[in-house]
Amino acid sequence: MIKVGIVGGTGYTGVELLRLLAQHPEVEVEAITSRSEEGIRVGDMYPNLRGHYDGLAFSAPDAERLAACDAVFFATPHGVAHALAGELLDKGTRVIDLSADFRLRDAAEWAHWYGQPHGAPALLDEAVYGLPEMHRERIRKARLIAVPGCYPTAVQLGLLPLLEAGLIDADRVIADCKSGVTGAGRGAKVPSLLAEASESMKAYGAGGHRHLPEIRQGLGDAAGGPVGLTFVPHLTPMIRGIHATLYGRLTTEPGDLQALFETRFADEPFVDVMPAGSHPETRSVKGANLCRLAVHRPGDGDTVVVLSVIDNLVKGASGQAVQNLNLMFGFDERAGLSAPALMP
Amino acid sequence: MIKVGIVGGTGYTGVELLRLLAQHPEVEVEAITSRSEEGIRVGDMYPNLRGHYDGLAFSAPDAERLAACDAVFFATPHGVAHALAGELLDKGTRVIDLSADFRLRDAAEWAHWYGQPHGAPALLDEAVYGLPEMHRERIRKARLIAVPGCYPTAVQLGLLPLLEAGLIDADRVIADCKSGVTGAGRGAKVPSLLAEASESMKAYGAGGHRHLPEIRQGLGDAAGGPVGLTFVPHLTPMIRGIHATLYGRLTTEPGDLQALFETRFADEPFVDVMPAGSHPETRSVKGANLCRLAVHRPGDGDTVVVLSVIDNLVKGASGQAVQNLNLMFGFDERAGLSAPALMP
Amino acid sequence: MIKVGIVGGTGYTGVELLRLLAQHPEVEVEAITSRSEEGIRVGDMYPNLRGHYDGLAFSAPDAERLAACDAVFFATPHGVAHALAGELLDKGTRVIDLSADFRLRDAAEWAHWYGQPHGAPALLDEAVYGLPEMHRERIRKARLIAVPGCYPTAVQLGLLPLLEAGLIDADRVIADCKSGVTGAGRGAKVPSLLAEASESMKAYGAGGHRHLPEIRQGLGDAAGGPVGLTFVPHLTPMIRGIHATLYGRLTTEPGDLQALFETRFADEPFVDVMPAGSHPETRSVKGANLCRLAVHRPGDGDTVVVLSVIDNLVKGASGQAVQNLNLMFGFDERAGLSAPALMP
Amino acid sequence: MIKVGIVGGTGYTGVELLRLLAQHPEVEVEAITSRSEEGIRVGDMYPNLRGHYDGLAFSAPDAERLAACDAVFFATPHGVAHALAGELLDKGTRVIDLSADFRLRDAAEWAHWYGQPHGAPALLDEAVYGLPEMHRERIRKARLIAVPGCYPTAVQLGLLPLLEAGLIDADRVIADCKSGVTGAGRGAKVPSLLAEASESMKAYGAGGHRHLPEIRQGLGDAAGGPVGLTFVPHLTPMIRGIHATLYGRLTTEPGDLQALFETRFADEPFVDVMPAGSHPETRSVKGANLCRLAVHRPGDGDTVVVLSVIDNLVKGASGQAVQNLNLMFGFDERAGLSAPALMP
Repeated sequence: MIKVGIVGGTGYTGVELLRLLAQHPEVEVEAITSRSEEGIRVGDMYPNLRGHYDGLAFSAPDAERLAACDAVFFATPHGVAHALAGELLDKGTRVIDLSADFRLRDAAEWAHWYGQPHGAPALLDEAVYGLPEMHRERIRKARLIAVPGCYPTAVQLGLLPLLEAGLIDADRVIADCKSGVTGAGRGAKVPSLLAEASESMKAYGAGGHRHLPEIRQGLGDAAGGPVGLTFVPHLTPMIRGIHATLYGRLTTEPGDLQALFETRFADEPFVDVMPAGSHPETRSVKGANLCRLAVHRPGDGDTVVVLSVIDNLVKGASGQAVQNLNLMFGFDERAGLSAPALMP
Repeated sequence: MIKVGIVGGTGYTGVELLRLLAQHPEVEVEAITSRSEEGIRVGDMYPNLRGHYDGLAFSAPDAERLAACDAVFFATPHGVAHALAGELLDKGTRVIDLSADFRLRDAAEWAHWYGQPHGAPALLDEAVYGLPEMHRERIRKARLIAVPGCYPTAVQLGLLPLLEAGLIDADRVIADCKSGVTGAGRGAKVPSLLAEASESMKAYGAGGHRHLPEIRQGLGDAAGGPVGLTFVPHLTPMIRGIHATLYGRLTTEPGDLQALFETRFADEPFVDVMPAGSHPETRSVKGANLCRLAVHRPGDGDTVVVLSVIDNLVKGASGQAVQNLNLMFGFDERAGLSAPALMP
Repeated sequence: MIKVGIVGGTGYTGVELLRLLAQHPEVEVEAITSRSEEGIRVGDMYPNLRGHYDGLAFSAPDAERLAACDAVFFATPHGVAHALAGELLDKGTRVIDLSADFRLRDAAEWAHWYGQPHGAPALLDEAVYGLPEMHRERIRKARLIAVPGCYPTAVQLGLLPLLEAGLIDADRVIADCKSGVTGAGRGAKVPSLLAEASESMKAYGAGGHRHLPEIRQGLGDAAGGPVGLTFVPHLTPMIRGIHATLYGRLTTEPGDLQALFETRFADEPFVDVMPAGSHPETRSVKGANLCRLAVHRPGDGDTVVVLSVIDNLVKGASGQAVQNLNLMFGFDERAGLSAPALMP
Repeated sequence: MIKVGIVGGTGYTGVELLRLLAQHPEVEVEAITSRSEEGIRVGDMYPNLRGHYDGLAFSAPDAERLAACDAVFFATPHGVAHALAGELLDKGTRVIDLSADFRLRDAAEWAHWYGQPHGAPALLDEAVYGLPEMHRERIRKARLIAVPGCYPTAVQLGLLPLLEAGLIDADRVIADCKSGVTGAGRGAKVPSLLAEASESMKAYGAGGHRHLPEIRQGLGDAAGGPVGLTFVPHLTPMIRGIHATLYGRLTTEPGDLQALFETRFADEPFVDVMPAGSHPETRSVKGANLCRLAVHRPGDGDTVVVLSVIDNLVKGASGQAVQNLNLMFGFDERAGLSAPALMP
């Protein structure tokens, strides 16, 4: 049994961590912090948690209390983890950051996209990008994890087999992504109102989105060189879920694409390659730490289409964070993550 | 570890049983039957179950195979359990029926509402109505359980304290109920299409609904005499959830209604009386075996309003069925039912 | 052709006025004011209006410009119309107020529910409550109209025939109402987010809601004496629509209720009494200035149930405002209001 | 005033025709046929039409009665118009076919995709593809119109300027399309249930879809040669709307793309090129006969992204059919089609 803390637990990734950890056999939540909700019990803010965590209330951020934990999750806006991570690491507490603070290896690129200087460049070297399907062994030994973003998770898992095998033109990859509204967080913004966002579909950030450099970095690792990516996210009228539709141009006769994908992910507990001809639905992973994939080659032409679905709050955030925790502490990788998706 | 079978597992209550039992530490699903889907693996029909139940496929109904189970769930249209329950009981298999077949104690009334003769009147005497909050001790010893309907569960739990205490006029109780569309089952009907049922609200069955006699029977047990009930169900544009809004006329000074409710359900693991002034949301129980209640007395007048929410597929069907199983087999009543609701 | 102004046009009732008036043959929108959006063209804020109103932009509130209009609509929070209405009336401009400012005849009751003194009590005498089905002749001559609230419209239209005929116990009427989220306005509030409000149903204001005194006042007019009302509103996961389910206890043998309703509304262009046994759907009035009603008497007992649906933004706000305008200026009552609802 | 008939009016395109024609100043609906609903009044089947079309009921298909109309719309499954169109044309009635029967110029390709021989190949020569933005002059003189499909409309309008100008690689165009569920029709199918299709997103037909050859034909006309298209449609949890996200590779320096689009559609009443940087929302065209477009060039690279939205039932079907009718009969092209979209 380890003790964990959560910084910034009032958003959707925070409550999702609590939901998942309530079922985790090896973890006790010791502290959850929020400046704005100090003193409120978690069950009063999130009624689904009434009857769980009964003694637990949001507390003001307190480095000492957090440092008494074995691990601390950051479910915060960018910049917050920069300020606190170093101190916690120094005291022996491991850090799992769900924000973007440590995802980009290049501090200057981070500064460009986030409009402020990077607050902890000295930690970048040891931060491990927490995509277990690429970096499992490094994660096991890591002290500081940058949990991948939701879009980056769905896109990278769908493209890894093709890029690692060098089958597609890395200069021209297209990721057309559709996300439920929780991807925009719990902030009170007019465009996220039910009256505005339901019964509608729209693209956003077609000119450039903060997840773009993260995806390019990860795909570049897989391809062994720079990847040219066009990434267009869309807001979809649903609560949870990301559907990434990925297009690549085959540069060579690819052989059996279905077998390629099945082999690549054969040992992955949280990637499910669907049978040939499938179209995965986001609801099939709702609440579950899972990426479901299908690969198509329409008309046996030179375009390959990969369909990749995740729950943005689970495999795209809090579930993946727990999966990282499990690896870091030597638990069963599936601990706390074994429940089937909620369907219908 | 016990072995269970599921008859008619292709509907929503069937897949929900599988979802819940996948997390149950004491149960193995031995057989699941469906005439129409024979040979199909459950993960092929319900992709959320891929990776769970890997050997399990729908089989043709086979009494012998079912009789080898310790318990059999019926998740079938009415009439099916009538035909099979007796044979299974004779062979020592316990039966938990999610259909309406054994809910009404009066075979003639059953025949009236379901338009066909009751197929197993000899079993009515021993059938126990599976609402643990009323009949827990009888359930522990039962061989045959009639799992309550979804509306009846929400309505009865909300009214029990008032009727047991004799505080309201039993002649004139109103239950205005709102249900998500899974309450109508998985049948392909035009009114259940997203294009028809979303972005709309409507009542149905205002002139009379099959759950009416079941609710009246249960409320009558609580009141110790006949209850006059007006019950109007409504179709709500959401997948899961029932919200029952219950109106009673106080016939006496009721004292502290909040305390009355809290005391009545103090030991109930799956009934949560919210703080005074609350308005429970159906999403706070999505996927969870829970009824959340709040009691109001507007303007301190003589009308009491109870708000009662459940997930129709869990506390209103499959979760309650598992709760009954736990009681019948002496397991922890919470086994397999401890996960928090999925929110948001 | 008359000229109209709209004060506070950035909310949902404002844009709905613009949508309806774009089709009105006798009206030109001369000015639309908004402090926060000054200078923005309406098509830039509401893209559905691109190509309509091309010269029109939000302007700062300007009493002189408004006074040059034949009529001014207020689509504002409460209090604003109090401050401006008198000046406009003095200059000969008629005022149609969609807010609550002039709905209650009793300034003290208004102050009680809105938490501030009434700002224009001298105008209360001449304000006409703009429910044409009750006050058509007074509306024709009015200078100042208080457009009814959305819940009050649905509830009053459903209960008028019963109360006018003295058929039900006026001491104990129940209105269980379900509203889409636009009823809460366009403010950026967390509970109105798609991620919070969709896939859920909840009551609110069970202890008391600002529409309660307005409904009681109107029902009292119909009944010729005080009416005891329990009113419970619910938030429903849809954009538009109100479904009121109304319960009354018959105090006498009512005769043919269907005929009563059909006769009462025979000449009403915007009230549609559905055939006996019907269950009106809110989507059948989506975008249309219409109230659809059905009356039921379950089991021929002593409870009567009326089902009443409107679009909260049309017959519950902007459409009714236009209907009032038509009456005040002697236009065809249907002008600009003749399009069928959008279904599916 | 002309008389029109509708064959097969029970589906969504049929009711949408009735909704639009109810506002058309020059058209009277003389007959609407349906084998299955013979004798039912349209207002009984579609309650939004109660109060409109009061004398009109579905009648059995009757060629004589239809031939007495000036024009007949077919809102039927494929194959039906093949059988009847010739006879109507011979009697001088013009035919506007909303099905796929006359969309493909090549009867053999039609037979390949629809799995049956083409039933009226002799009429293919005179059938005009009813996309006014490409074929307005031919439509004016046509006797037989093939109304474009919904996806083909959104995709062609978005790509026309680029292909006509020869700016993109015609061998490798990608159309990632998202459609609301009415695109699947009103048939009672399990995947279209609210419980299945809401709160989820999925692709379908990634291996090949019947709209593919139609789109290729139209794009080929614009490009002046064959176009290689990858088309992946997705089912989106909303009632109406198509969002097409279109990707092309620039083969030359394109100049001012915004100006190119604005110029191309400057005189089009039903195509709205949004300002540079825009992201059109499907809800901005809900119920309206309009295509809204935006063109992006992310990072000034060599990929151009076009965002194209329509209401699949209006500009993607019934509205476009009325637009064709207006052209054929010399009415104002906007007649019956001038109402703003319903938003929110």
